[in-house]
Amino acid sequence: MSGNAIEFATPFAVYFGDIDDDSWGKTGLGLVQWRREGCAGQLRLPGCRDRQLRHAGIDIVAGLHVRLASLPGLADAAQSGRARLIDVRIPPPGLPVGTGRKRSGLRLLTVGTDCACGKKYTALALDKELRARGRQSDFRASGQTGIMIAGRGLPIDAVVSDFLTGAAELLSPDNAADHWDMIEGQGSLFHPGYLQVTVGLLVGSQPDAFVVCHDPLSHEISGWPGFPLPTIAALIERTVLIGSLTNSGVRCVGVSLNTSKVPAAERRRLLARYAEEAHLPCVDPLVEGVGPIVDKLISEFRQ
Amino acid sequence: MSGNAIEFATPFAVYFGDIDDDSWGKTGLGLVQWRREGCAGQLRLPGCRDRQLRHAGIDIVAGLHVRLASLPGLADAAQSGRARLIDVRIPPPGLPVGTGRKRSGLRLLTVGTDCACGKKYTALALDKELRARGRQSDFRASGQTGIMIAGRGLPIDAVVSDFLTGAAELLSPDNAADHWDMIEGQGSLFHPGYLQVTVGLLVGSQPDAFVVCHDPLSHEISGWPGFPLPTIAALIERTVLIGSLTNSGVRCVGVSLNTSKVPAAERRRLLARYAEEAHLPCVDPLVEGVGPIVDKLISEFRQ
Repeated sequence: MSGNAIEFATPFAVYFGDIDDDSWGKTGLGLVQWRREGCAGQLRLPGCRDRQLRHAGIDIVAGLHVRLASLPGLADAAQSGRARLIDVRIPPPGLPVGTGRKRSGLRLLTVGTDCACGKKYTALALDKELRARGRQSDFRASGQTGIMIAGRGLPIDAVVSDFLTGAAELLSPDNAADHWDMIEGQGSLFHPGYLQVTVGLLVGSQPDAFVVCHDPLSHEISGWPGFPLPTIAALIERTVLIGSLTNSGVRCVGVSLNTSKVPAAERRRLLARYAEEAHLPCVDPLVEGVGPIVDKLISEFRQ
Repeated sequence: MSGNAIEFATPFAVYFGDIDDDSWGKTGLGLVQWRREGCAGQLRLPGCRDRQLRHAGIDIVAGLHVRLASLPGLADAAQSGRARLIDVRIPPPGLPVGTGRKRSGLRLLTVGTDCACGKKYTALALDKELRARGRQSDFRASGQTGIMIAGRGLPIDAVVSDFLTGAAELLSPDNAADHWDMIEGQGSLFHPGYLQVTVGLLVGSQPDAFVVCHDPLSHEISGWPGFPLPTIAALIERTVLIGSLTNSGVRCVGVSLNTSKVPAAERRRLLARYAEEAHLPCVDPLVEGVGPIVDKLISEFRQ
């Protein structure tokens, strides 16, 4: 992993193009949230200042499957402006096949009922809270936004299928016995397009613990009509079933809800209901933080 | 798929290099078995006639993750000999994300307790038997050997993870209501290195039926000591659980055993025991063919 650091200069500007919905700008929003100290501002269309940016010697960093250099004119513009084009979704060469070998140290993976329901945010918040309590922890980024935030990581969904579990194994290497890796999850085990990514990341990560992330106002896989979200209980059961292949002790330690669209008056009751149904701490990490989940984690995995 | 035909000239020679175990030569052995009419002979080290071959204007076809052109000297040798280097493990560009949309026609997927336990052979044998009975059927190759045999297909394990279910959907497109696709399976749902490939192929294939392939003398995942093979019952249960995401009617229609190393006196008793335990037809396709499984398939899926 040391050879896979993603480095780009600060300060940086976030370019949102012509998106008309926040959910299409999650990489930029993640950087504004978690690397705010390096963010000089943001740019939007119309106004089209991106062309000027490209000739101003400012590096361009992207996390798409499409390579920046393949966009007409961009490589020339970058060269004439002495800027770099940095694609963070290119996996390193020579990835191995997964071995299933047990690694030292402790691992937590965030899983979700869908994509884009708080897995990255929750892992980052757990990492921050553990460090604040003086514990050893690392955030392990598995997606483009997480990699830009952490400055390192592996773009799991861009890895050739045969090497997906192997890449996930590299992402959280052997570590001290009381060290936690907080691994950013991807997709969902019930997602008809992406579940293979979720499965490979789960089995390669061999997590000791996991947290379920969920948007309580959603009922279908976003963008895949006709595919219902699983219940929290069903997702926990399936995660344990598949995760047991490489870690027989894998267990759920909490539920992370996105309550941003829930009416204020209903929020506490909603969290209480989920907590009671799952018999687990249930939080919105943006509102009350992840303290109750970290309490449980520390208590359950006392050395 | 029509744009993805893998074409190479016949007759061809199979080159086995310096392998000392049949299991490392499965691509060559598969071609000798299923495209014998085009096979002029085979070559082995020592004697090293491959160098002469490379300058003789004979195309070289390989199914490795390593690209032929990346081997020192080979591209030059091919050019000087007017031969082509054909890598069948390069997926086509522009693969889509899986949609989960129900497709017309019928599909059978071969699954296995491990890699290299008869999934390709069984799918080929089922296709041949259905055609012999006047039914519409296509063999759908998902691996390098299958692609060389069929002359078309998609190397599923070489696809970028995000597009694996999408590639599997392309492999068996919409078809006539009574047409069967016999889809070559990959890996195993209990394989710590490759299960993500198996999962993506299963969900993208949305099979109506599946056949379990198994080597009755194996007890561990080959090459992954400490990972036991699942029982046939456990594999059926897991396949139905995951496969139900895109086809709620998915069911097992037979068991295919490799009995080549079973003492002759025990063979029939072994097949009978597996058949009784699974309540399904159980055959060794090399010995008695797959007739009993096709009988069940036709009876279960009567239009």
